[in-house]
Amino acid sequence: MNFKALYTINYGMYIVSAQKDGRFNGQVSNTVFQISSEPPTLAISVNKQNLSHEFIREGGYFVVSVLSKDAPLSLIGQFGFKSGREADKFAGINYSTGQSGVPYIQDYTLAYLEARVTKEVDVATHTIFIGEVVNAEVLQEGTPMTYAYYRLVKGGAVPKTAPTCIEVLQEGTKVVKAAQYRCTVCGYLYDPEKGDPDNGIGPGTPFEDLPDDWTCPVCGAAKDAFEKEN
Amino acid sequence: MNFKALYTINYGMYIVSAQKDGRFNGQVSNTVFQISSEPPTLAISVNKQNLSHEFIREGGYFVVSVLSKDAPLSLIGQFGFKSGREADKFAGINYSTGQSGVPYIQDYTLAYLEARVTKEVDVATHTIFIGEVVNAEVLQEGTPMTYAYYRLVKGGAVPKTAPTCIEVLQEGTKVVKAAQYRCTVCGYLYDPEKGDPDNGIGPGTPFEDLPDDWTCPVCGAAKDAFEKEN
Repeated sequence: MNFKALYTINYGMYIVSAQKDGRFNGQVSNTVFQISSEPPTLAISVNKQNLSHEFIREGGYFVVSVLSKDAPLSLIGQFGFKSGREADKFAGINYSTGQSGVPYIQDYTLAYLEARVTKEVDVATHTIFIGEVVNAEVLQEGTPMTYAYYRLVKGGAVPKTAPTCIEVLQEGTKVVKAAQYRCTVCGYLYDPEKGDPDNGIGPGTPFEDLPDDWTCPVCGAAKDAFEKEN
Repeated sequence: MNFKALYTINYGMYIVSAQKDGRFNGQVSNTVFQISSEPPTLAISVNKQNLSHEFIREGGYFVVSVLSKDAPLSLIGQFGFKSGREADKFAGINYSTGQSGVPYIQDYTLAYLEARVTKEVDVATHTIFIGEVVNAEVLQEGTPMTYAYYRLVKGGAVPKTAPTCIEVLQEGTKVVKAAQYRCTVCGYLYDPEKGDPDNGIGPGTPFEDLPDDWTCPVCGAAKDAFEKEN
């Protein structure tokens, strides 16, 4: 068995949000797909440990915000590496709410899809929520971000609760020539060849030359939380 | 509700195969995703009308062959627009079988994933089959074909039984300047700007200049089955 075969599956990048008793929460997801066209029906896979799992189950609705290719790592970090149990993930986010009262992201979002949960399927660590699309709008033209683009081009990290996390746990990362540093909090890899353009750090900037107040673009950890990658 | 929002969801392109009583069948699918990593678990969405639905249910296993970006339309046509009820879809195909006896495609395939069905979920026109990965191998390096690439670059058609077929039914196709012709059998669009490079027809070849024995690269229909697109 070669687990690398799993990496050839193609995904997009989404923020899945929900509400419960007027409180909002959301999380990054790559496992969103359409499973029927009559009626239009979506399926998403959510880790049972995540707060969003509880919000979707109790609120009965979820909204998928489809991220654009130019979405910054900081947005993905806010929804992917913080828990709604400790912070309001929508603080500082430009959002609106759909018919169900569930929020969707307005910036860096190409479209949103609002679904009413019609079924839940228990699958080991995750639940598949199946939902009928009750509302959907296109917000802007653009290219959707793919999971491959996020991982390879943006150097993005994956939380341990993600359905595809086996990639990180089992295979580690490729060894490359430049001196790379990994965030010990979230797993984000700083690659000097790419820099951190979202935050004004140009390609070719060694980790050692980053400003002292530079922080992890995904989770916000300080520079000393990084370790040199072997 | 704007159904175009559904098109922003990202998919790959796969052939999903199964066997029943020693007979093989397979179909093109874009709805394959990983839903858990412990144990590695896949979900696929299959139309209840398809023969593969019966084979997967009764055989208890499915295999996903991940198509490479350079897979020809003829391969997709053989599995996507013919029914296993009328023809052996594996005739002329270079394949091997996995541990379960289910075949996988060897050509234009980056990897295959073999799964044992552990759960079925009824969703309107489709069933979601959930399967634990029992075997997986990488066959070659390469770039996976995405659904967007198939639709936009290769000009590929979508059968009416596909989960994402709403795209075709509701929106039709974009009007472009060159005289395009559509196959009335399968819906494939011949775009003279692209030609049919898989079959030696270069970009810029008008439909009228195609050889008389040219056939639809997807379903094999003759040239007179094509109608001019308005």
